[in-house]
Parts: sequence; C-alpha cells; structure tokens
Amino acid sequence: MTSQYVITVDWGTSFLRAYLCEVSDQTQLKLIDTQIARGVCKCDGEFEKELMTCIAVWEAQYGKLPVYLAGQISSSLGWHNTQYLPCPLKPKDIAFGGINFTANGHDLYILPGTSCQYPDQSFDVMRGEELQILGWLQLDPTHAQGRHMLCLPGTHTKWVLVEDGIIKLFKTAMTGELFDIISNNSIIIEEPSQDFNQDAFNDGANYVLAGDIGDFSHDLFSVRTKQVMEHLSKQKATSYLSGVLIGTDVRAAQRSSHWKLDHVESIHIIGSIKLSECFATVLNLIDCPSKIYDAKQTSIQGFTSIIMQRNNT
Amino acid sequence: MTSQYVITVDWGTSFLRAYLCEVSDQTQLKLIDTQIARGVCKCDGEFEKELMTCIAVWEAQYGKLPVYLAGQISSSLGWHNTQYLPCPLKPKDIAFGGINFTANGHDLYILPGTSCQYPDQSFDVMRGEELQILGWLQLDPTHAQGRHMLCLPGTHTKWVLVEDGIIKLFKTAMTGELFDIISNNSIIIEEPSQDFNQDAFNDGANYVLAGDIGDFSHDLFSVRTKQVMEHLSKQKATSYLSGVLIGTDVRAAQRSSHWKLDHVESIHIIGSIKLSECFATVLNLIDCPSKIYDAKQTSIQGFTSIIMQRNNT
Repeated sequence: MTSQYVITVDWGTSFLRAYLCEVSDQTQLKLIDTQIARGVCKCDGEFEKELMTCIAVWEAQYGKLPVYLAGQISSSLGWHNTQYLPCPLKPKDIAFGGINFTANGHDLYILPGTSCQYPDQSFDVMRGEELQILGWLQLDPTHAQGRHMLCLPGTHTKWVLVEDGIIKLFKTAMTGELFDIISNNSIIIEEPSQDFNQDAFNDGANYVLAGDIGDFSHDLFSVRTKQVMEHLSKQKATSYLSGVLIGTDVRAAQRSSHWKLDHVESIHIIGSIKLSECFATVLNLIDCPSKIYDAKQTSIQGFTSIIMQRNNT
Repeated sequence: MTSQYVITVDWGTSFLRAYLCEVSDQTQLKLIDTQIARGVCKCDGEFEKELMTCIAVWEAQYGKLPVYLAGQISSSLGWHNTQYLPCPLKPKDIAFGGINFTANGHDLYILPGTSCQYPDQSFDVMRGEELQILGWLQLDPTHAQGRHMLCLPGTHTKWVLVEDGIIKLFKTAMTGELFDIISNNSIIIEEPSQDFNQDAFNDGANYVLAGDIGDFSHDLFSVRTKQVMEHLSKQKATSYLSGVLIGTDVRAAQRSSHWKLDHVESIHIIGSIKLSECFATVLNLIDCPSKIYDAKQTSIQGFTSIIMQRNNT
C-alpha cells in the first residue's frame, strides 16, 4: 500500500468518521477531508454499502484507495470480528494483527482488539483506543522509553501502562457511561444541567478522594444528601456528580496495585478537551501532574503509525 | 388516641399502602384490611383527596380514625415536609418528632425523617425505613440491648447501627437503584433477564469481594468483559451484575471504619425475601451470619411501637 492518499475510518457504535488523508514524506498523514456517516449500531448491518456511499466522492476523484478501519466496526457487532490480541503488545502487533480484505475494489485493513489478563485471571478488553496509544507513542521518541501512564477518558476510561514502547496492561472504568445513565435516570439528579460548576465538581471529587474505603454506591448518595441538607443546589448537582464519578475513577487508578502512580512522572491524558481537563483537575487534587493531548489528532497519528509500519515491510 | 382501630399508611413515591388495624391488648396491631392508592409522585399533589378516597370505606364503617403516615409523604415532595431528626435517636424521638394535624375530621400523625452526621461533616438521611428499625426493636426485648447491625435492602440499602435500643448511625448505598438503571440502560446488559442464576450471582459477588481496592466502575466492566471472553452468557449477565452490586455494597459495609462488622454477632436483614436472601448469601461469603425479617410485618410492628409510645403518655 504505497498510494499517496489513504482513507482512515473511526467507526464507532453511533458514528462513522472517515478521513481522507495525504501521506506526506512517508512519515505523516495530512488530513484533507472528512465525511460522517452512520455508526455500527445504526446502519442495519449494511457496512459495505454505508462505507462505499460515504467515500464515493473521494473514489470519484482519486480511484480505489487503501482504507484503514478502527473502532467497534471490528467487534462482534461489526463487519469483521477481529481477535483480541493479548498484552504485552508492540505497535507492530496491532499494525499486522487485524484482518485484510477487499470490498468493491478497495484494499481494507481492520484493526484487532486488545486484551490483558490480570494475576487473578480476570480480563480487560479494548477496541479502538489502541489507536490513540500508538499515536501518542509516535508523537515523541521519548514516549517509547521508560514507564508511562496514559489516561484515555470517554464513555469508558482506559488507564494504560506503557513501558519502553510496549503496551503492558490496561484497565477500564465505566465513568462516562455511568455519568450518562445516572444523570438521566437517577432520582439524585432532578434536573440534569449542562452548566459546569467548577466548585461543585471539586467538592464531589474531594469528597470521594477523602474516603478511607472505596464506597461508590454510598458516595453517590451524597449527591442527594447534600441537596436535602441544602449544601448543594439542583443546578450544581450534575457537576458535583461528575466530580464524584471522576474522583472515583482517579482514586482507583491512584491505589491500583497493578502500577504505582507515585512512580510515574506525569499522566498523559488523551481525550476531548473538556473531559480531559476534568481528569487533569482531579489528578492535580492528588498532586499528580498531567499533560493533555487532543484525541482526534492522536488518532490520526495512530493511523500514521499503522500505515508507516505496514509500508516499511 | 385510644381508638380500638387505627389506620397506618406507608406512602412512598409510587404507591400508597393503607392498613386498617385493630389495636389488640394495647400491645399489638392486628391487620384487618388493606387499600392501595397512588404514590406521592402520582397524585398531582392532591394528598388529602387521595387519602380520603382511599379510606372512605373504613370511615363509613368505623367513623373518624387516627391515621399514622410514613414514607416520602413526609418529604419535600409530599404533604408535610417534616424535619430530619439527628442521630442518636430513641424510638420515642421518632414517635413524637413528627407533625400532628387534622384532615376531614381525622387526627393524623406524620413521621419525621432522620439524619446522621459523620466525623468528616458529611451527612446521611433516611425517611420511611426508621419504621422497620422501630418494628425490629419491638420484636424481641434482647434487640434493645447490646450492639446490633441492621441491613435494610431496597431501592437504597440502609445499614444501621443500633446500640442499646438507640439508633446511633446509618449509611445509605444506592444498590437497588443502580441495579435498575444499569440493567435497563447500560451496554453491559444486552438483554435484561428476570431469571436468577445463583452461580452467576456468586461469581459477581466473589469477584468484587476479592478485589484489593474498592474499584466499582472497573469491577462493573467485568460484566461486559466476561461476556466478550465467553465466560458469561447474556442470559446470566443480569444475575452476575446483581452479584457485583450487592458484593460492592456488602464489601463497603464490611470495611467501614464507622463500625466493626467483625464485632457484630449477626446481621439483621429486613426486606423482601428474595433480595434479603441475596444479601444473606453475600454476607455468608464473608463468613458473616445473618437473620432475615419480613419487611411488611416489621413495618406494621414499627407502627405498633409508635402508637404504643404515644398512647402511654
């Protein structure tokens, strides 16, 4: 695959985001154009049709192009159910561990999932986020040396330990999804609010961080209790809830026996700016410095990593 | 209030349950008849009308009767917003700390709420469950001596420490509500199932109990991971989720610094039979014996306690 142009596709459950990119100097992808289409769960299983319609305008101009697919499209819900590669993993394992196939004359590559097993025999799984890890490794040569902790907030937060350029293990926390379903369905939030209140958020996080045991389902009730006691207004309750949830997430990462957060110089947060700043704030409350990276840019950098490795063989 | 008949009302958000009781020997309430009507959130604020329609048939036969009301009817959503009495509390505080009023010629008494404050200045609140605590104290004279731990599972579990007949403190966990909103809204449960599977339930509870830190939002993701890895079927996922949630609840109670569960001879569980048995199972997994009491019977016993104390003054 040495075409000057490639199509990279982030195909999640709700949306398909396709990017037409130019491969410049064999080391960078330059974003030329973007198309949005329906997600894995929204297109009635007609994946080829959905993709081909989406990229038709590019095909008309550039002909058949290599297509790289990541996200839930590679899951049991999607087009091809790729394997979960077990950690530890090198970037090249991900660049070659997926599935090659053709559709309508295009060469396609669909990424694998990744998994890791803990000493207690329990597992964790990831699908899509590995792209951001590869992108982050690509950003700076120092990232491939030493011990680094990555935090990828989103619907499900992924905490990832990277050592000498190798993905050693990761851990999922359902923080984003819990925020969504609790704020929309629980009696503790009478009126979900979009207005973010920093003080209420910090109060929620500090309340959880100060607890002597991890006691989530009790800590959560403080959203209600503080309103009943008139220490928290209805309008600020959503921000306080967000603090409780992200506080719970960071607290568990801080205390995990699978890594020592104290031994990590800085946490690398890759996500949307607003959510990343919330995590950075809570990490700061436990005196842990962090650095934020843009999720979309890091994803495109991840596709760069995949393409460069495949082109170099 | 020395009438031979009384009406006791458990008026929650969804339902009003009214009981016509005969006061026998001045020490027991004997249930004569039951009426069901609309809950606090379902009757458009027309509380007096709802109650009077509900008890009209009894009024026709017995005339004006004393009425005792408990539950969310005494909250800010209800008829009269009674105060939260702070722990420690004696039964007589609850028997007299509410509000007396009249409606349509009936004498009514509406119970207070209760609250407790922790050393870190945080609060917890309760409204309705105190009736079961009073009922449990009434059941056996030995309950009013020594140190006892009560567990009241439901939408919100209440763990209550009772010492020498005094309610010392309590803690809420949102276990039941979390089960409801997660099983109906989260991607981790594809098909909510009503079929209870004991092995899957125990697996979920044991997974949480074995964890070295309280890591709820990660533990919760094991519902998904185990399905992906084909260690758990979709049909059993709901039972496993229940085990994770009740395991989280019991784990936190076990480790709470506010009481020592090891120093408690037995846990007294008051709730619906099925849910109580789930809690008893998990308590058994941590070698903690428990005894189950029927919630409805204990509630009526609680009204007995209130009425006896008020009649004895």
